[in-house]
Amino acid sequence: MNQPENRPYYTPFLEKYIGFLSTLLKWVFLGALIGVIVGSTSALLLNTNDFLTDVREANAFLILFLPVGGGIIGYIYKYYGMGSRRGNDLVLEHIHHGQGSIPIRMGPIVFICTFISHLLGGSTGREGAAIQMGASISEGVNRLFKINKIDRRILIISGISGGFGSAFGAPLAGTVFGMEVVALGKMKYEAIVPCFVASLVGHLVSTAWGVKHDHFLFENIPAITSTTLIQVALVSIIFSLASVLYSQIRHEIKRLSDKYLNQDLVLRGVVGGIILVALVYITGTRDYLGRGLPMVEEAFKSDVPTFAFLAKIIFTAITMGFGFRGGEVIPLFFIGATLGNTLSNFINLPASFLAGVGLIAVFCGAANTPISCFLFSLEMFNGKGKTYFFIACLVSYIFSGNHGIYGAQKIYSPKS
Amino acid sequence: MNQPENRPYYTPFLEKYIGFLSTLLKWVFLGALIGVIVGSTSALLLNTNDFLTDVREANAFLILFLPVGGGIIGYIYKYYGMGSRRGNDLVLEHIHHGQGSIPIRMGPIVFICTFISHLLGGSTGREGAAIQMGASISEGVNRLFKINKIDRRILIISGISGGFGSAFGAPLAGTVFGMEVVALGKMKYEAIVPCFVASLVGHLVSTAWGVKHDHFLFENIPAITSTTLIQVALVSIIFSLASVLYSQIRHEIKRLSDKYLNQDLVLRGVVGGIILVALVYITGTRDYLGRGLPMVEEAFKSDVPTFAFLAKIIFTAITMGFGFRGGEVIPLFFIGATLGNTLSNFINLPASFLAGVGLIAVFCGAANTPISCFLFSLEMFNGKGKTYFFIACLVSYIFSGNHGIYGAQKIYSPKS
Repeated sequence: MNQPENRPYYTPFLEKYIGFLSTLLKWVFLGALIGVIVGSTSALLLNTNDFLTDVREANAFLILFLPVGGGIIGYIYKYYGMGSRRGNDLVLEHIHHGQGSIPIRMGPIVFICTFISHLLGGSTGREGAAIQMGASISEGVNRLFKINKIDRRILIISGISGGFGSAFGAPLAGTVFGMEVVALGKMKYEAIVPCFVASLVGHLVSTAWGVKHDHFLFENIPAITSTTLIQVALVSIIFSLASVLYSQIRHEIKRLSDKYLNQDLVLRGVVGGIILVALVYITGTRDYLGRGLPMVEEAFKSDVPTFAFLAKIIFTAITMGFGFRGGEVIPLFFIGATLGNTLSNFINLPASFLAGVGLIAVFCGAANTPISCFLFSLEMFNGKGKTYFFIACLVSYIFSGNHGIYGAQKIYSPKS
Repeated sequence: MNQPENRPYYTPFLEKYIGFLSTLLKWVFLGALIGVIVGSTSALLLNTNDFLTDVREANAFLILFLPVGGGIIGYIYKYYGMGSRRGNDLVLEHIHHGQGSIPIRMGPIVFICTFISHLLGGSTGREGAAIQMGASISEGVNRLFKINKIDRRILIISGISGGFGSAFGAPLAGTVFGMEVVALGKMKYEAIVPCFVASLVGHLVSTAWGVKHDHFLFENIPAITSTTLIQVALVSIIFSLASVLYSQIRHEIKRLSDKYLNQDLVLRGVVGGIILVALVYITGTRDYLGRGLPMVEEAFKSDVPTFAFLAKIIFTAITMGFGFRGGEVIPLFFIGATLGNTLSNFINLPASFLAGVGLIAVFCGAANTPISCFLFSLEMFNGKGKTYFFIACLVSYIFSGNHGIYGAQKIYSPKS
């Protein structure tokens, strides 16, 4: 309307086109930058975790230092945390409200505390550390390039995607994980380009750093019939309830330890460590310490203890509820795979297949990210059994209601 | 707060739980009901289309009746359509606004007109017919059970999912197609249960009716390197622009034929038929009539004419723009696969792989449903090359901007 007469008629098209291309290039550039850094830190995280797990397994006495380690972690967060103690929830809230800032030190601190947790045998994984590092790095990029408020949130989501994609070797699931995890029942399409670039580049970079990912295989997949479809739907309800059980126990332990020991984060960590050590001696096994990957593999091959899933729920809820660091996704894999194996005694489906369904469904019920979890099943199991996994993700997502491990997930639309 | 004292403490949980289960059962029941009916009508659609295509190919003179057929279609919509002429757009608008109602006759009418189009050689497919029949059936279910306003929209979305899933033998893509197609940049998570049930049951039922789906195979997939990833991203821009070209030509032809011939739908159909017959004699080939599946197969195996994609764009835009019926997805597959084959002369990637990428990317650019198109690639190519297809869908989605075949798609968030 206000267009000067002497501009050629195609100017607005050209301007629109240039605007589009420059926005796109911006996202590709920033996403790739985040991907390169996050991919490298994820490689550091994974390789160090592997190394520390080996050290712990070779030195049985190390677990006796769990109370000391818990105390040190509490000390670090108390005096140097600057609010980063709230971890994933802080990141999610920041994306919702866009107020304040994410402390850049959140990344390095969560890495150090994750290393301590792994060295001493806390039952934990990696996803929290990877996500928080991803968010910290994105925040660094935001400050460096003085990114505006709206774009900042998108880049923090990309940091989550980059962290997840590189930490689990699953670039497609990573892309959608960032877009889905922020709010329950909503997908942030506007973040799709930088999320994908960060996740894929992060994966390629961590692979280039020599990271190898665990792949679990199931022997055979039942042919699709109405019976098998209904069976998978029904067991997925059980998996979903297991995820709810875990989320609730963990929140409750955290609530209680916050209530009685929050004044003294150091004491809290010490108490958590003592409980873990006591549990190891009461149960007489170390199978539920650390990531527990050997038993996850076992669940795909032969039998596991009937209540292994319950033991892992308790070990992990205590580890995370008392302030140790790492992540909950690998413990959730453990819980799901062992529960699936146990259920194969009652249901006429192959144990390794049920372990696979359980691994995905328990993760999905806890994270509330159905499309991402489905993509993860494709990437982990190479596209096998996709209809079953879709059902498992859907059912688990629906039945976990508004429970989940990410307390700050916004509830955008109720599930039913 | 107002809770009477004499109610046991667990009553609210119980009520919530029963409410949840009854909602869930409602969606499963209604979704399955829609799935059974839509799966059966889709089977009728596909088997009849196959039969009519055989009849047409055996009787070369039939195409001379295209003007008559066009006139009959115009006549039917003019005197019996009750507004259903606007087809897919009417369905989408109805979901947005929830006002008025979808005429139930929309389904039967679009089927009859699709049969006429296929018998006489219009360049068309099936997705419009399947979607409109799905929506009609959902509307019937809505009226039968006196469903409330909010749930009605969800069931119409489920009808779209059921139609797509059963018409293309792709239950996962069908589920998400309904959830994604309604609005650009938004996914309707609240519809996920009935969409999935309708799509899966629809697929199982149409399979039980003996429907077989075409599967195209590519010989080999290039190993993932930065070079191949970038190559796929770049060709996907070209595919995206081809989808924009198609959408724009089709809209323009429709606009012109609306402008000059809208007063007389019969004349409009006759003119469209005459143009198509003329085009056949000018080009001297019938390869661009009907669905054209033989040339799609050819594109995965050997060479196709360099400008086959352009010919199909023109034939289809005229067919659809002048009021013939069927669908645009299979013509889009044709355009993408032949363009991919053509591009293999310039790019160092296998022709059959590029045909597959083109098939998916052109469809995605036109439908603006990236997750659904990606799932479709998994279902059609059995999970092969998933990272490439994800890139192709993403790039094509982004570069097609706000262009697409569904004019009534709501723009929820701009793409970049």
